[in-house]
Amino acid sequence: MGRMTSRRRVLRVRDGVPAARPDTLTVEEPLEIRVAGKALSITMRTPGDDFDLAAGFLVGEGVVRAASDVHSIRYCAGATADGGNTYNVLDVVLAPGVAPPDASVERNFYTTSSCGLCGKASLDAVRTTVTWPIDDDPFGMDPATLSGLPGELRAAQRVFDRTGGLHAAGLFDADGKLLCLREDVGRHNAVDKVVGWATRDGRLPLSGTALMVSGRASFELVQKAAMAGIPVLAAVSAPSSLAVDLAAELGLTLVGFLRGTSMNVYTRPDRLGLQPS
Amino acid sequence: MGRMTSRRRVLRVRDGVPAARPDTLTVEEPLEIRVAGKALSITMRTPGDDFDLAAGFLVGEGVVRAASDVHSIRYCAGATADGGNTYNVLDVVLAPGVAPPDASVERNFYTTSSCGLCGKASLDAVRTTVTWPIDDDPFGMDPATLSGLPGELRAAQRVFDRTGGLHAAGLFDADGKLLCLREDVGRHNAVDKVVGWATRDGRLPLSGTALMVSGRASFELVQKAAMAGIPVLAAVSAPSSLAVDLAAELGLTLVGFLRGTSMNVYTRPDRLGLQPS
Repeated sequence: MGRMTSRRRVLRVRDGVPAARPDTLTVEEPLEIRVAGKALSITMRTPGDDFDLAAGFLVGEGVVRAASDVHSIRYCAGATADGGNTYNVLDVVLAPGVAPPDASVERNFYTTSSCGLCGKASLDAVRTTVTWPIDDDPFGMDPATLSGLPGELRAAQRVFDRTGGLHAAGLFDADGKLLCLREDVGRHNAVDKVVGWATRDGRLPLSGTALMVSGRASFELVQKAAMAGIPVLAAVSAPSSLAVDLAAELGLTLVGFLRGTSMNVYTRPDRLGLQPS
Repeated sequence: MGRMTSRRRVLRVRDGVPAARPDTLTVEEPLEIRVAGKALSITMRTPGDDFDLAAGFLVGEGVVRAASDVHSIRYCAGATADGGNTYNVLDVVLAPGVAPPDASVERNFYTTSSCGLCGKASLDAVRTTVTWPIDDDPFGMDPATLSGLPGELRAAQRVFDRTGGLHAAGLFDADGKLLCLREDVGRHNAVDKVVGWATRDGRLPLSGTALMVSGRASFELVQKAAMAGIPVLAAVSAPSSLAVDLAAELGLTLVGFLRGTSMNVYTRPDRLGLQPS
């Protein structure tokens, strides 16, 4: 597991009886993402697949659209006073001609999340940045196959087994085959790592795939899926109002409360071959 | 519930049978927090108690230490092109002599989260910003009382009952009495709202209280609790490595996996009267 887990002493209490013992925790450390030396974002993440995290984050920002948009990614030595490399600071050099992001607070937000104003009318602002037309993706998945994804995801979560404390995102093909799974203390990081893996593997846009996440579906996750061209996003728990609104705007299929043979399909049920009875 | 929930159509599938029906979702909308007209932060939150959210956020940043540090908070009219008020943009005016925050990406992070470098050695950077010495707080809570908090929290979650999709944070006194509960799509927002309520009610520092959160315990939540002077943080699920490290540094009692009569006490078990058997 490398740096993904760490041991600490804990006082474990069962039925009022305390006992000291070692415990395995999910590692959380900051990652600073720089573009051409300039700090763009700092996120608390679980170490591992950091290059994928950076690449996926930049796809979500609309900066990167293909592996060739990234010239290089490296860990910064000299980030500490003594010149050491903490492996917590990354620098991304974009390919010639690829416009770097604006790192201001406002710009960050207007690009990546929503309008900051009304949260609805200006979903248009997001839609215009989408690179691939999700709406037209003819991908279909059988509901029975979709119902199998939470079990597949859970079975592949190696770190969760040991710590009980992190999120997962898994990318699946139409037959329900797991293409990539990532675990992280932040669910947005887990998605960025999946998208970044696909990007660096030359797979964008991710038409014909479904993304399954372990928690809830927020606006941000719908946006990240859309920016990668993923037509189906499924979550174990509830979506927010804005997640549903954005999915409807973009024509992405959004599924929540995917448990056993039950699910709530909020948008574009046609991709699952479903019509109201 | 005001703007906290919203209705959408959903295709609900049970045992393969789809049926169209209305569904209640948790509202997610952006909130831009400005200080003296300058954008500081934009967060996706559930509307409601926004003034508390802004005040609590600024306590976490180390900018606000008492109600008197805030001169005024208001929603910005004219945030949209047509001059309307979306109630999604707030402006905070600090009292004379209170230093405004630096809104740069780096500064935001170095103040609020961690070092961006090693994630460990420079926990010192956080410790120096803590306003109240948590370490010395003599507060104690009976483990049986602590075990009752998740049930109290869950029972008071009105919005969760209707949507199944948001986080909660609750502030309790030594007898397990609920002082304040807030629900939000973001767990950090729920904590900010609780801290902001207490701040504006003149209750800081929150010595003699315990904060209970519905999810996991991250570095950020330990930091927010500490900045408000809360000596005990309890979570239903797992803490991260950095959450435990920061709690140990600051002398805050951190409890995870608080379920039934079981719990894991990661730091300062003496406040619960516990010693290893």
